[in-house]
Amino acid sequence: MQKLTQQQMGRLTVEEFRAMTKRPVVAVLDNVRSAGNVGAFFRTADAFGMEAVVLCGITARPPQKEIHKTALGAELTVAWRGFDSTLEAVAALREEGYKIVAVEQVEGSVKLSDFEPAGNEKYALVFGNEVEGVAQEVVDACDLAIEIPQVGTKHSLNVAVTGGVVLWEFFRRLR
Amino acid sequence: MQKLTQQQMGRLTVEEFRAMTKRPVVAVLDNVRSAGNVGAFFRTADAFGMEAVVLCGITARPPQKEIHKTALGAELTVAWRGFDSTLEAVAALREEGYKIVAVEQVEGSVKLSDFEPAGNEKYALVFGNEVEGVAQEVVDACDLAIEIPQVGTKHSLNVAVTGGVVLWEFFRRLR
Repeated sequence: MQKLTQQQMGRLTVEEFRAMTKRPVVAVLDNVRSAGNVGAFFRTADAFGMEAVVLCGITARPPQKEIHKTALGAELTVAWRGFDSTLEAVAALREEGYKIVAVEQVEGSVKLSDFEPAGNEKYALVFGNEVEGVAQEVVDACDLAIEIPQVGTKHSLNVAVTGGVVLWEFFRRLR
Repeated sequence: MQKLTQQQMGRLTVEEFRAMTKRPVVAVLDNVRSAGNVGAFFRTADAFGMEAVVLCGITARPPQKEIHKTALGAELTVAWRGFDSTLEAVAALREEGYKIVAVEQVEGSVKLSDFEPAGNEKYALVFGNEVEGVAQEVVDACDLAIEIPQVGTKHSLNVAVTGGVVLWEFFRRLR
């Protein structure tokens, strides 16, 4: 099994990516501390054709060296917006018609494996800080919560890994 | 929606985790450079109840500070083994009856969304170096390859994110 060359992968040009119909999904980062995690979100959003990344509070914004390194430059193609606070972002996105979804372990959450995204809905998925998760006041402002089922001793995944798993499910199911 | 306390999450004790029946899946890391990525694999393997993490070549081994930090200590509960080279690991795992699967973009790969793990099979999933991916000689020693479908400009995901997506699929499908 020969590894594919970059040409064989069918990578889009920047223009093709911008013109492509995206999955109607934005990833909202609630005070994510590590620029490396931010970069990984850009890279994942590029891979799965998501609409945008929304950077809130202390979350680093491009241009930034560590984001550039870990995003492999995907922050130059994937659309992004910044908000001073996550609550402001949530209010703006709700106004624009997004369903606001906390990705968090909360009472009444829906298991990711059971969640079926509606074809006519736009989703804003909120991912939390590395230590605190999604802030309770932000959870309170969400329409629902999705949780990744887990069985181990920690019940905690790296936030960029969580983003990969959840965005993959939306990508897979919204084909 | 109230966030769950750590007690409400039903986290397993170390003893309970060790006694639990695992998914028959090991994650083989082929010369992964970043100890942070190694730590993320331990954390993901804990969350999804995987059998072990297999650390090959230059891949860092516990005890190691950065692994401990990013694994949140999951390297103390998830079983691990080390091999001088990935080819040695692949040979040993094949001898033990594992099906060896490269997670890589290669000719003839199976799309992750189309792959149905067999209930009676044990899987060794090989994840590659951050820059080089899975080495061609290691791909050549694998039984098959799985590829995460991607649509963007990079066709490249962070290796820990890749691990999250692929291990999630095995977790979800092997319930």
